[in-house]
Amino acid sequence: MKDSKNDKVSRRDFIRTYTLVTAASGTVLSLNGCNNRITAQRTQGRKGIFSKDCTILFQGDSITDAGRNRGRENNANDSAALGKGYVYIIAAQLLADRSSDGLNIYNRGNSGNKVFQLADRWDKDCFSLKPDVLSILIGVNDIWHTLNGKYDGTVEKYENDYRALLERTKQKLPKIKLVICEPFVLRCGAVNEKWFPEFDRYRASAKKISQEFNTLFVPFQFMFDKACKETSPAYWAADGVHPTMAGASLMAQTWLKTVTNTV
Amino acid sequence: MKDSKNDKVSRRDFIRTYTLVTAASGTVLSLNGCNNRITAQRTQGRKGIFSKDCTILFQGDSITDAGRNRGRENNANDSAALGKGYVYIIAAQLLADRSSDGLNIYNRGNSGNKVFQLADRWDKDCFSLKPDVLSILIGVNDIWHTLNGKYDGTVEKYENDYRALLERTKQKLPKIKLVICEPFVLRCGAVNEKWFPEFDRYRASAKKISQEFNTLFVPFQFMFDKACKETSPAYWAADGVHPTMAGASLMAQTWLKTVTNTV
Repeated sequence: MKDSKNDKVSRRDFIRTYTLVTAASGTVLSLNGCNNRITAQRTQGRKGIFSKDCTILFQGDSITDAGRNRGRENNANDSAALGKGYVYIIAAQLLADRSSDGLNIYNRGNSGNKVFQLADRWDKDCFSLKPDVLSILIGVNDIWHTLNGKYDGTVEKYENDYRALLERTKQKLPKIKLVICEPFVLRCGAVNEKWFPEFDRYRASAKKISQEFNTLFVPFQFMFDKACKETSPAYWAADGVHPTMAGASLMAQTWLKTVTNTV
Repeated sequence: MKDSKNDKVSRRDFIRTYTLVTAASGTVLSLNGCNNRITAQRTQGRKGIFSKDCTILFQGDSITDAGRNRGRENNANDSAALGKGYVYIIAAQLLADRSSDGLNIYNRGNSGNKVFQLADRWDKDCFSLKPDVLSILIGVNDIWHTLNGKYDGTVEKYENDYRALLERTKQKLPKIKLVICEPFVLRCGAVNEKWFPEFDRYRASAKKISQEFNTLFVPFQFMFDKACKETSPAYWAADGVHPTMAGASLMAQTWLKTVTNTV
């Protein structure tokens, strides 16, 4: 992948996040642009952003959905309802590592979704659950469905829709803790040169939104670019979009490293 | 759980395994009863018991099966074919952490199986795959089906059948690396006082077999007993036998800690 300016920004933030999350001392660190989130993490100790009995909601498209059983979606911590992707692996580890914390984990990713479709179902699939922590991975369909003529999207529409969704969310749930996951693609399968440099702009928008709302940011594109230096892109996502089991595991590890300090 | 003599033995071995696997120095350690396996692990460095392009086979009963798709069982590293239990979580992490190693991972656990039923299908479900590493978790049905009148089992039969199976395996595949998983139950659901102390004898037999064949041993009972001090048994295995998502994750972590040095 091209080492664009955005890539470099992501990489710096990635290393910064890792260093701070895994640092051993109790000092509250201060760095430009991420003071609040680091302070919040560190003063809450081992639990990180998770409070006792809190509700954690994963939202997104097919990568998050991962074959989840919708008939069981109202059950927290239900193996079938969590699908078989990165959400399942994260949930299994959180429930094992924090067994006394009473976590309630839900997956409401829907295959094919773009940002505006999250907004359409936000009352049912977000507010009704009253999440304390909300992790969102969205964006690949906003460009993919535009490239294949199914949708008339632009980066500006993506960014504005995303901003409006989070403003609405913060208004309704002021104390919510947000985790924005970077959209990613791998150069194989359905992903060809036509995606670039446009896709990098979608990624930059997700990053910008994360900074505006002062959220945690999970750098999936940087992670996969690094992984592809060792193994072919198709090993991690055969069609360039949907992660394999190995790709899902890598995503889970990076999410956990970014959001908690237990891995 | 009662802290029996067997529990104490398991705990010592558990701590010993952890200490050695995670030790930082390059020295080959020597301890009674486990010289060979420690030497083998340490001299192979990061890969532990896994050689390049090796085949790893998981065998057992429903706990290993975990809803695997039998129609895809001949595909290595196939998410559906690996089920949704501890095997899936282990496989996902191994494939992510060792992406350059060309691992081939299979699950051939069958619900309801006892040791003699593994033997019945060993040509098809073990030898045909020529595994380099074989992990077995078997035993709970040998006692459960006896308690409920479906089988006429004894500890002696279990131990003799297990020994014969491993002798046959070592004869056919002399270089195979074996991992014996300790059978476990949690005191809830279907598991009541009638299971004890008989079940402890089954566990002791599995341990004895592991020592006779100088295999790695994964101390699942000790692990769950420890976990139950923090959270109720049903949190880890609602019916006392089949792990929840949290239980499966805990098993995967312990398996990986015992067998590799990457966690």
